[in-house]
Amino acid sequence: MQHFADRLTSRIKQKGTPICVGLDPRLKQIPKYIKEKHVKRHKDPFEAAAQSIFEFNKGIIDAVCEVVPVCKPQIAFYEQYGASGFRVFAETVKYAKEKGLLVIADAKRNDIGSTAEAYAKAFLGKIDLFDEEVSVIDADAVTVTPYLGFDGVKPFIEECKKFGKGIFVLVKTSNFSSGDLQDRETKDDDLKNYELVANFVESWGADEIGKSGYSFVGAVVGATYPKEAEKLRQLMPNAIFLVPGYGAQGGSAADCRPCFNQDGTGAIINNSRGIIFAYEKSDKYDEKSYADAARDAVLAMKRDLEEIF
Amino acid sequence: MQHFADRLTSRIKQKGTPICVGLDPRLKQIPKYIKEKHVKRHKDPFEAAAQSIFEFNKGIIDAVCEVVPVCKPQIAFYEQYGASGFRVFAETVKYAKEKGLLVIADAKRNDIGSTAEAYAKAFLGKIDLFDEEVSVIDADAVTVTPYLGFDGVKPFIEECKKFGKGIFVLVKTSNFSSGDLQDRETKDDDLKNYELVANFVESWGADEIGKSGYSFVGAVVGATYPKEAEKLRQLMPNAIFLVPGYGAQGGSAADCRPCFNQDGTGAIINNSRGIIFAYEKSDKYDEKSYADAARDAVLAMKRDLEEIF
Repeated sequence: MQHFADRLTSRIKQKGTPICVGLDPRLKQIPKYIKEKHVKRHKDPFEAAAQSIFEFNKGIIDAVCEVVPVCKPQIAFYEQYGASGFRVFAETVKYAKEKGLLVIADAKRNDIGSTAEAYAKAFLGKIDLFDEEVSVIDADAVTVTPYLGFDGVKPFIEECKKFGKGIFVLVKTSNFSSGDLQDRETKDDDLKNYELVANFVESWGADEIGKSGYSFVGAVVGATYPKEAEKLRQLMPNAIFLVPGYGAQGGSAADCRPCFNQDGTGAIINNSRGIIFAYEKSDKYDEKSYADAARDAVLAMKRDLEEIF
Repeated sequence: MQHFADRLTSRIKQKGTPICVGLDPRLKQIPKYIKEKHVKRHKDPFEAAAQSIFEFNKGIIDAVCEVVPVCKPQIAFYEQYGASGFRVFAETVKYAKEKGLLVIADAKRNDIGSTAEAYAKAFLGKIDLFDEEVSVIDADAVTVTPYLGFDGVKPFIEECKKFGKGIFVLVKTSNFSSGDLQDRETKDDDLKNYELVANFVESWGADEIGKSGYSFVGAVVGATYPKEAEKLRQLMPNAIFLVPGYGAQGGSAADCRPCFNQDGTGAIINNSRGIIFAYEKSDKYDEKSYADAARDAVLAMKRDLEEIF
């Protein structure tokens, strides 16, 4: 069983880019011809929505799977369509893995230990189903929230160890008001809260370092806060950064640079809307060719990121 | 449309107790006769698990709906059974509401604004489904995590305003390592992080106060930290406290007292395992009478809580 960080870094090397495609399928922006087909086919509108999402995702995955190492479906955009949405979330994870992508389930789960265990087993490991061990979502990694402290994260780490999976802990998020709590200065060595959490991440992952030099306990660090990222890179030399905020949220390629280590490894840069809905902002492509538009957007982003090294 | 805090406080008065029944259905502990029935009936083990949970829950809800005001299903124990589990989570919410209970979805959701909106609409409001506004889970309230700051919480507040719903923000959680981050002292007036978050909660709810004097922005405060609760009660006079940690986690009735205001209002005390699996620890009841055991456990807890006023 290969270590998650080693799988991820070798996949990045193989594809020649650290791009993560965010699969945030907003129904409004999915091409009409897809939606019309499924509205005709399925009486239940929730099922029609879910199937539209799945067909859309498959198109994107097919178009990008040979050029990117990893994708990140955001579960909020699936579970809002109820059980049907939840099912196509799991199907999207499965399909993307079959196509050779690593999959990070962006779920930001968190709870007290005994409950976190249920999340960890569902997203990464295996649950006990009438005395059989079975997979449910079986993503390669999941995002988790640190507010509850170590015992809310430990069950995820246990599943990572058992099944070669990873987690990305929210450290400094990309949103405008991330500073409300994260930027507050504490009396612990004058560290800000996000720096404290960075120290947690580094220590939680200290015993879990792969051959790549990276641990399976990663960190979410927004491209929208490059100065903070610089400090965070020092505090967490062994953590892989999952970096949201590039593109639509305002982060540039240069803003992403501090998230990488000197040698250009250690970060994956996510782009959701800018890739999957690229067709909307293109003269060259229309909704029928949304997948080609996505692939082109990936290649443009790849060139953009190459500029910083 | 009635204000959430008013609905909750009037329901507490009507039932004469602030007990919240936690619906955390661990499959292992569900009576065998229920599981055997559904394993026979359903080929798909996920569906058998989900239906076992739903039947179990209905038994509990029927037994307690006349004596308690509110219940709290914890979604981790449902979504671990995939789409089937997610569906019976929504069905449990619906059934409990039909039986006159208020329902808090314990989901601890959190994300950046545009994504938090999807969660907020799914759990509390209505989503846009092919230009129709439809409910998905439609709980009365949901638990949310504050690590991302205000813009991650605001979309929930918007749905609360529109649909008379509520949120409970994690402030000081009941688990052992909640202090890792929550107890750190900051340089802002020497407040600890959980106290800072308490101030957020009070300010986020300041314009949203109902006739009861309480806001629809509530707080999660663990019964396992009574000293902290005392201070938090002062910092958030207008917030209703959702209090986990009574019973199995070690909190006593006396430990819950500081979570209430002087007049004995302002808190609901959750008990999950101690109620729903009471049959396991009883000489009087067996698995066939698990629902009666639950009702008895509620009545015993009610007497226990009455001692503190």
